[in-house]
Amino acid sequence: MKLIESLPHIKLSTEPEDLICYGFDASGLEARPSAIVWPESTEDVVRVMKYAYDRNIPVVPRGAGTGTTGGAVPQSGAIIISFEKMNKIIDVDTENLNVICEPGLINGRLQRNLERIGYFYPPDPASMNFCTIGGNVAENAGGPRAIKYGVTRDYVMEIESVLPDGKIFKVGVKTPKGVVGYDLARLFVGSEGTLAIFTKIRLKILPVPEEVITLLVQFNDLESSGNAVSEIINAKIIPRTLEFMDREAIQAVENFKPVGLPKDVAAVLLIELDGHPVMITKDAEKVAEICCHLGAEVSVAEDEIARSKLWETRRALSPALYHISPTKINEDIVVPRNKITDMLKRLRAHSEKSGIRIVNFGHAGDGNIHVNIMVDKNNKEEYEKGIGLVEHIFKDTLELGGTISGEHGIGLTKAHYMGMEIAETEMSIMKSIKHVFDPKNILNPNKIFT
Amino acid sequence: MKLIESLPHIKLSTEPEDLICYGFDASGLEARPSAIVWPESTEDVVRVMKYAYDRNIPVVPRGAGTGTTGGAVPQSGAIIISFEKMNKIIDVDTENLNVICEPGLINGRLQRNLERIGYFYPPDPASMNFCTIGGNVAENAGGPRAIKYGVTRDYVMEIESVLPDGKIFKVGVKTPKGVVGYDLARLFVGSEGTLAIFTKIRLKILPVPEEVITLLVQFNDLESSGNAVSEIINAKIIPRTLEFMDREAIQAVENFKPVGLPKDVAAVLLIELDGHPVMITKDAEKVAEICCHLGAEVSVAEDEIARSKLWETRRALSPALYHISPTKINEDIVVPRNKITDMLKRLRAHSEKSGIRIVNFGHAGDGNIHVNIMVDKNNKEEYEKGIGLVEHIFKDTLELGGTISGEHGIGLTKAHYMGMEIAETEMSIMKSIKHVFDPKNILNPNKIFT
Repeated sequence: MKLIESLPHIKLSTEPEDLICYGFDASGLEARPSAIVWPESTEDVVRVMKYAYDRNIPVVPRGAGTGTTGGAVPQSGAIIISFEKMNKIIDVDTENLNVICEPGLINGRLQRNLERIGYFYPPDPASMNFCTIGGNVAENAGGPRAIKYGVTRDYVMEIESVLPDGKIFKVGVKTPKGVVGYDLARLFVGSEGTLAIFTKIRLKILPVPEEVITLLVQFNDLESSGNAVSEIINAKIIPRTLEFMDREAIQAVENFKPVGLPKDVAAVLLIELDGHPVMITKDAEKVAEICCHLGAEVSVAEDEIARSKLWETRRALSPALYHISPTKINEDIVVPRNKITDMLKRLRAHSEKSGIRIVNFGHAGDGNIHVNIMVDKNNKEEYEKGIGLVEHIFKDTLELGGTISGEHGIGLTKAHYMGMEIAETEMSIMKSIKHVFDPKNILNPNKIFT
Repeated sequence: MKLIESLPHIKLSTEPEDLICYGFDASGLEARPSAIVWPESTEDVVRVMKYAYDRNIPVVPRGAGTGTTGGAVPQSGAIIISFEKMNKIIDVDTENLNVICEPGLINGRLQRNLERIGYFYPPDPASMNFCTIGGNVAENAGGPRAIKYGVTRDYVMEIESVLPDGKIFKVGVKTPKGVVGYDLARLFVGSEGTLAIFTKIRLKILPVPEEVITLLVQFNDLESSGNAVSEIINAKIIPRTLEFMDREAIQAVENFKPVGLPKDVAAVLLIELDGHPVMITKDAEKVAEICCHLGAEVSVAEDEIARSKLWETRRALSPALYHISPTKINEDIVVPRNKITDMLKRLRAHSEKSGIRIVNFGHAGDGNIHVNIMVDKNNKEEYEKGIGLVEHIFKDTLELGGTISGEHGIGLTKAHYMGMEIAETEMSIMKSIKHVFDPKNILNPNKIFT
């Protein structure tokens, strides 16, 4: 019996235009699925999985397709489960500081709903106005606020999911603490759709901080901006964001969406402090003192409008880069934060030696640099040179004690490099765990592992 | 070849007095191991594991034996690996806010070392002056500060471990973020020594908060104390501790280590706020207002000495209970925090109906109640009645949306009840994961799973 007959009452499509639209994500990779289904309930997901399991058809869960490593790009012939219709906030429980939602809920919609009642959900990926909570959990998404508040992993309490054979599978607890058996909830966070399909997610929330101060700091040399990051943390100040953009990044975004950032400086830091007004005023003064001492110029966003504008710019950075060159090879390495200056110097050297532009920005407070190697895919020689740089950059990252991905995951684009960081024994245990959950290897196959 | 010949240069003992001393833990359970070894390095652990693996001898890692669920109690004939000689702080890296240590390091020693330079490691189990970091990680230990700062899980960055077959196995990253492959570091936290033997641990640390205010709040009825917990959180205040003791607990500790707690009140809350002085003064006033409105009496610890005394009392609670009756059946349930009053009422009803004293204290802010059923093991009828209460209490806990263990783990004592909370499919996946790491089942066998 065909898919369409087996799954009455579930919206599905095998139209070529849908198969094209749902066949790619922000990685730029694409493939052709065999069908798209839009479940409306856990039971719908169960039915899809049973159908696929019986017939050994690969299944790929999909949020908004904003991932940059190809996690949502299907294997040819796979069924895509799109969560656009499972996008509800099921419950907001301020007494116990948590919410339950469906995986298709847009992160930004959750944020706006919570803000209205004085709460917030800290993880705030740059794509927050599009990306979904299910995708965030699958990738362990971070964002600017991670330096103070942590990443998605730190907020997931409970997940209802469906196993490849269609069994409903519940992990985690409704309470802040719980140590009954292995921590499968945390194992699911960052598992990139390879272990189970999420259908309900309970997240921890927090009361909004009383006040926020936003500082824009301009540096005339790259090293000083890296050093400022270390010195701020050494001063025992933990800002809620500590974002970095190099000159190329500033120029790209100013040409695309101008807010008046100075195009001639070497780097800027976008620093935000939150908490009690007296405390953050004192901390902001200390931060300004540290930065000025390093030769920087510090300005304060006077009001909410100025602040929003700066963040809009920051969030526009990723799309803005396409105005520099048609293809960006996008990495998100992390180094220990006192190695940022070191890493930025190495990146500059790679760029100079190869003649390929590298644009850097990211969450400097976490040592998390978004490295963008700017090339043109149609210029084969240039593209291959660009791809060749990736391995060198990862080698440097690992040499400095870092990791090759801070928040984008492995997906398809980094699977080839996994072995640089993960040793054989560890890799083989990970594959065995995948096999425990998905013995037929039908759940987002070929992701993470080559 | 015998153990002693196979492991030259590793301290070991098969003396009966050692076998007795290392055969029990704070659960009160005991068994007779075949040998105790005291490795001094990862390589020593590798050699012990290879010896045991080749001969199918069970191995039990042991910190300080302060666990209350029997996690460190060996199977008869097992080799105990005691980490007393692997107790070093290897590195303190304030620039990157982390420390590396060996698993035998005492939590309290780490705290004192960090405090001297203005940092702290948030997890602070009541046994912190004895318990080890390795044990803390194995059990995912919490403590009073968990309400604001989270539990051990939230601080583990990287673990070096040894697999049953002697392979060295590294999980996690040196940086705050990292999403390369499955999160095995988090899987290890709370795994109770059943997946791998930890040999080095990297932990996140934080700068100490500027100031702390400690409030002692006395309630004349139990319900109001539970309601106060909810109302404080509803007021968007997150104290760093929100500890609860009922009348029986206060009396027990006052008889054992008097600090002048009022023995005639129904309950006390020990509330601590930390941060900038202006902010916590304002929050403390709000907390006092909430509690007074519920009919409570609020006092402030005037100085560090008064504060330390209160905490010494809190930490003495567990041992003090032995002065009430020779045996305590010790549980650490968690309920959603707005169900605390409900749960306390149910506990009181169980006590009244059975005629058995139940003493309650714990981390009310997390909904984590340490329930102590006071009996005499030698009075068989009473003891069995006490044990019989456990199932009822767990049933109530789960009915209210809670979990049967918040920080003590499952070990031996709760393995029998696992099935009340964890469904068959989830349990079977957990067992398969255990099998992936430990196919011969020699690593702390019979723990967690029956």
